[in-house]
Amino acid sequence: MSLEESFAKLCVEPQSDATVVKALVFKPKTPKSATPVPIVVVALLSTTTPSPLIASATSTKDPRLARDDLFKDVFNCSTAKEFHLGHLAQANSEFKLLVDDKLSKLAGSTICNVNQKFLQQEQLSDYLEQFSPEVVDFSQELPSKETKKPAPVAAAKSAALEDAKLIGITVDKALDFSGWYQQILTKGEMLDYYDVSGCYILRPASYAIWEVIQRWFDDRIKSLGVQNAYFPMFVSSRVLEKEKDHIEGFAPEVAWVTRAGSSELEEPIAIRPTSETVMYPYYAKWVQSYRDLPIKLNQWNSVVRWEFKHPQPFLRTREFLWQEGHTAHLAEEDAKEEVLQILDFYAGVYEELLAVPVVKGRKTEKEKFAGGDFTTTCEGYIPQTGRGIQGATSHHLGQNFSKMFNISVENPQGPEFPKVFAYQNSWGLSTRVIGVMVMIHSDNKGLVIPPRVSQYQCVVLPVGITAKTSDEQRIAIHQAAKKVEDRLHTAKIRVFGDYNDNYTPGWKFAQYELKGVPLRIELGPKDMSNEQVTVVRRNDSRKYTVKLNELETRIPEILEEMQKDLFLKAKELFDTHRKIVNEWKDFVPSLNKKNVILSPWCGVMECEEDIKDSSAKKDNGEEFEADDKSPSMGAKSLCIPFEQPELKEGQKCVKCDRPAIQYCMFGRSY
Amino acid sequence: MSLEESFAKLCVEPQSDATVVKALVFKPKTPKSATPVPIVVVALLSTTTPSPLIASATSTKDPRLARDDLFKDVFNCSTAKEFHLGHLAQANSEFKLLVDDKLSKLAGSTICNVNQKFLQQEQLSDYLEQFSPEVVDFSQELPSKETKKPAPVAAAKSAALEDAKLIGITVDKALDFSGWYQQILTKGEMLDYYDVSGCYILRPASYAIWEVIQRWFDDRIKSLGVQNAYFPMFVSSRVLEKEKDHIEGFAPEVAWVTRAGSSELEEPIAIRPTSETVMYPYYAKWVQSYRDLPIKLNQWNSVVRWEFKHPQPFLRTREFLWQEGHTAHLAEEDAKEEVLQILDFYAGVYEELLAVPVVKGRKTEKEKFAGGDFTTTCEGYIPQTGRGIQGATSHHLGQNFSKMFNISVENPQGPEFPKVFAYQNSWGLSTRVIGVMVMIHSDNKGLVIPPRVSQYQCVVLPVGITAKTSDEQRIAIHQAAKKVEDRLHTAKIRVFGDYNDNYTPGWKFAQYELKGVPLRIELGPKDMSNEQVTVVRRNDSRKYTVKLNELETRIPEILEEMQKDLFLKAKELFDTHRKIVNEWKDFVPSLNKKNVILSPWCGVMECEEDIKDSSAKKDNGEEFEADDKSPSMGAKSLCIPFEQPELKEGQKCVKCDRPAIQYCMFGRSY
Repeated sequence: MSLEESFAKLCVEPQSDATVVKALVFKPKTPKSATPVPIVVVALLSTTTPSPLIASATSTKDPRLARDDLFKDVFNCSTAKEFHLGHLAQANSEFKLLVDDKLSKLAGSTICNVNQKFLQQEQLSDYLEQFSPEVVDFSQELPSKETKKPAPVAAAKSAALEDAKLIGITVDKALDFSGWYQQILTKGEMLDYYDVSGCYILRPASYAIWEVIQRWFDDRIKSLGVQNAYFPMFVSSRVLEKEKDHIEGFAPEVAWVTRAGSSELEEPIAIRPTSETVMYPYYAKWVQSYRDLPIKLNQWNSVVRWEFKHPQPFLRTREFLWQEGHTAHLAEEDAKEEVLQILDFYAGVYEELLAVPVVKGRKTEKEKFAGGDFTTTCEGYIPQTGRGIQGATSHHLGQNFSKMFNISVENPQGPEFPKVFAYQNSWGLSTRVIGVMVMIHSDNKGLVIPPRVSQYQCVVLPVGITAKTSDEQRIAIHQAAKKVEDRLHTAKIRVFGDYNDNYTPGWKFAQYELKGVPLRIELGPKDMSNEQVTVVRRNDSRKYTVKLNELETRIPEILEEMQKDLFLKAKELFDTHRKIVNEWKDFVPSLNKKNVILSPWCGVMECEEDIKDSSAKKDNGEEFEADDKSPSMGAKSLCIPFEQPELKEGQKCVKCDRPAIQYCMFGRSY
Repeated sequence: MSLEESFAKLCVEPQSDATVVKALVFKPKTPKSATPVPIVVVALLSTTTPSPLIASATSTKDPRLARDDLFKDVFNCSTAKEFHLGHLAQANSEFKLLVDDKLSKLAGSTICNVNQKFLQQEQLSDYLEQFSPEVVDFSQELPSKETKKPAPVAAAKSAALEDAKLIGITVDKALDFSGWYQQILTKGEMLDYYDVSGCYILRPASYAIWEVIQRWFDDRIKSLGVQNAYFPMFVSSRVLEKEKDHIEGFAPEVAWVTRAGSSELEEPIAIRPTSETVMYPYYAKWVQSYRDLPIKLNQWNSVVRWEFKHPQPFLRTREFLWQEGHTAHLAEEDAKEEVLQILDFYAGVYEELLAVPVVKGRKTEKEKFAGGDFTTTCEGYIPQTGRGIQGATSHHLGQNFSKMFNISVENPQGPEFPKVFAYQNSWGLSTRVIGVMVMIHSDNKGLVIPPRVSQYQCVVLPVGITAKTSDEQRIAIHQAAKKVEDRLHTAKIRVFGDYNDNYTPGWKFAQYELKGVPLRIELGPKDMSNEQVTVVRRNDSRKYTVKLNELETRIPEILEEMQKDLFLKAKELFDTHRKIVNEWKDFVPSLNKKNVILSPWCGVMECEEDIKDSSAKKDNGEEFEADDKSPSMGAKSLCIPFEQPELKEGQKCVKCDRPAIQYCMFGRSY
């Protein structure tokens, strides 16, 4: 029996007092190359369904009533006029469903579809439920276009169906990446928007990831002799402005405290954008002899950079959490060795914990940390936008700051030799890493979180309980499931069970997929009699059957396999989108195919600027996403990778006539 | 041979070109009841030694040239005129020694004491070394009286003798508690003063203690189902001011950001003084059904309270680190149970980790958290000042905030019942705990840190190496010591070794005593042949001999014994200074004897204020320390202890005629 037939079976006799319902189909505006996902709106005939509200609820642009060809293509229905709800069951591609919240308030009524199919309200609701509807309050105010905050994800109000708020992601990652990113973070309960623009709430699901990263990184830097400390968040303007090159980079973004209670402060006080100038006057004080070196301090704190560009959760926020390490060494080579050790740890956070591949390298003079000698970096890649993203940076400051702040010691060779200024490093990794991880692994069902960092690694669910299940049997299944949970807990797996009978397993599956729990462990009557559980991976729904007596060995293995597979998949995407381009004519076309580019380069700053300008035009008229900082963004240098393609004899720069001295990685970027 | 005789032996033949040195003795001003510690200044005859510099270097008040009676009492020397450096060796009580830094620059010269004793400079230095001299640059500028920052501890400049800065505390805990507290924190390298007033740098030695506390407390709250999160540090004025009672308490101390870069913000933004109003609007949003309760979040962050009172490291700082937990419950009894569980954890931080005894109880209406229903607290006691100190508080907010922010759910009994507002708690513990710990255990030699929280628990030192020791033997001792270190490290003891031959063991002993390392493990030739180490406890210099084959079992035992003994000693001091006073006539006299007081009390707020006013007078004319907030500070209510003395039938309030309803603990306080 087809779904449409089953729909037909639901229909009842025509009734004169039936409430009439309309079913409208919209097509959103999408880039030419993309396939639009239709939006079906089911609402009372009396309800107005304004296009901006539909756009907001689905995070799409300009939805318009669909033409007949779409009805044909998607619903096997020859014209818009013939379309009725039964057609939903035979759709041959994806669509989104919005349901008027007034519909849910008609319990007990008969509903009349515009095409004269009559149903009971409950049956209609049940029928629609399979298409993961989003319930929308169409009577709400239209979102204002002037609103400065990102469009609220939950323009769709969920009051009517109590659990509708938990129903999945309504935006396609491939079509509206920025809308998808917003939804996935908020519906996945990682983050919430906050009433101060550019600031976000890190909810337990994301903070727990940060805690795993903290523990991992902290253990490693402590093994290098780094100690944690805490310096004040405030810095006087005199100290802040001491290193000129450095402050020039930060000055436009510094937040100033000018008032306390009702008193104006005598002198405004800055909130640290980073702590070089906060810490180094004290390094100068504490370092009296070469025996006081090296000094290696790190702090886990938050810093404030009041950027005026469009903020984005995790990636560009006005306050963010990070660690900042600041070390001072007697010997230049010790400092330089450390810079790379730390960079390896940063790459480890990405690759080993977050399953995100990165390319390590050095920043160009243009892109390096202001005031330092050189900056090393690990760079990631976001496939959907084809943009590079700076992962974390480790700077060698040379003696620039130590000379400015007089961090110096008597020469160990004796007082007749000149005094030695310390060689310094600073290095930082922020909660940005979580945003990169989400962008790379998650999908249209919700978050996908790598097992090593996920707050919970497994959820245990009793399944197969129906109306026919005896109480005894139900209890036995629950108890067996709880035992699985307890055993995994004892085996140090981060696990929880959900034994709530008020929700169907299907609803729960969707919920934990949304939240990105790596493994779902199902236990039903069949599993019980076979002494097994059924395990489903979040990332690809791959199923495993695990015998109960192998629980403690197999689950960790499956978690590690998933971790590895996530990394390999992401790595393949990065590797296949990192193109060697030797001639300028191929540069922009390759960039426009969402690649980052490795090109032979002369190393001259003006040429780098020229590359950026020349790649900024909309060369092929392609539309960019709404979240681009600029729709015509040019390619920046991302890094000069440590791992270099071989440079041919006499190879010229990709852009100018000068000889190339190395390959540089260029890309549009965050 | 007495020390004076040995001094005589050092003397050489009179020489006409000798540099003349003077030895002056000063007596600082102290409270009448205290015994002054004399200050001996050894300087070139040509050096002026201004009294304010001596005061600053020793953290004393108004040092004046001593009269003959002091020479008699302290140095067994009949008059000031007869006094020479040899008398130092026969002092029968403590004194402080300041040495002119010019003296150290006279290597090779002959020195002539004013009493015609001639010595070589090196011998004089060696001789003075035994009295732990502080080297002072008397040519430095006088500290300005107008300086707003606390007097710099290191007015004594240490450039001349490279390691003089590490030489001990120069202020007596019993005589100048506040000067001692400053020195102990800075010289012990726990903390440094910062150029923004009221802000301090937490150096690794103190931050490591905080990390131990974090781990301990975090594990426990997680076992209650609390999750960590991070909310922004900024809060809009609209949200901040939502709960009126609450904001009234904080408004005068709120720091406001009004400018970013060069742009004035449209609306000033506050830095959180605490996060109730930051978090609760989101609790209201997230809590849609009773199934969303309880919600239990905690954050480790910093908050800002721009107090205008005299700041004090750890105890009253404008930015401080803390944790703040915020929970919302469906049932009142669950919330109330949690408030007490958390209070027990706080008491555990003090008693189990920091070896600081506390009294648990409830705050009076006057002293409770503004906007909450009731506040529970653990209260400590500082013996030297006789003042109570609030340790940490756990508040039951009732439904006050949930009604204000609409944190409510439909009644689980059904929609016909009224909706339920959540019952909330908030609770916080700050880095103040470290200040309390330092005040209680540390002494005139430096910090004393309880083993469970100390960054390092043991230092291993090779000893007994003299000029006669063969290279082979020296290497063997070093290797054996290193092996001890490695074995303890493997046994998870936080240990380090100091194998630097440039310092004498005596100098190292002083250094690690200053820093408060709990155990010193010495290994010398005799220890080697006996296959043992000598272990010395920091708190009381108690010595243990530990056989090498018992290292891994005995050292942890000795550490635990020390932990216990620190607690018992502090507990005895608190217990013997907590007096039951039933009659008002005994109240102030007992208070003035540095007690906190348990008195029967009526519970009326006006009476509480009367007690404070009436105990505020300088009843006995006694001098108070300079660090008192007010020299005539009255007694506040500290808490109504959970553990109550039995109230007699018809017992009246200690202050007024009303009947007493309970015992309340009163005291001068921080």
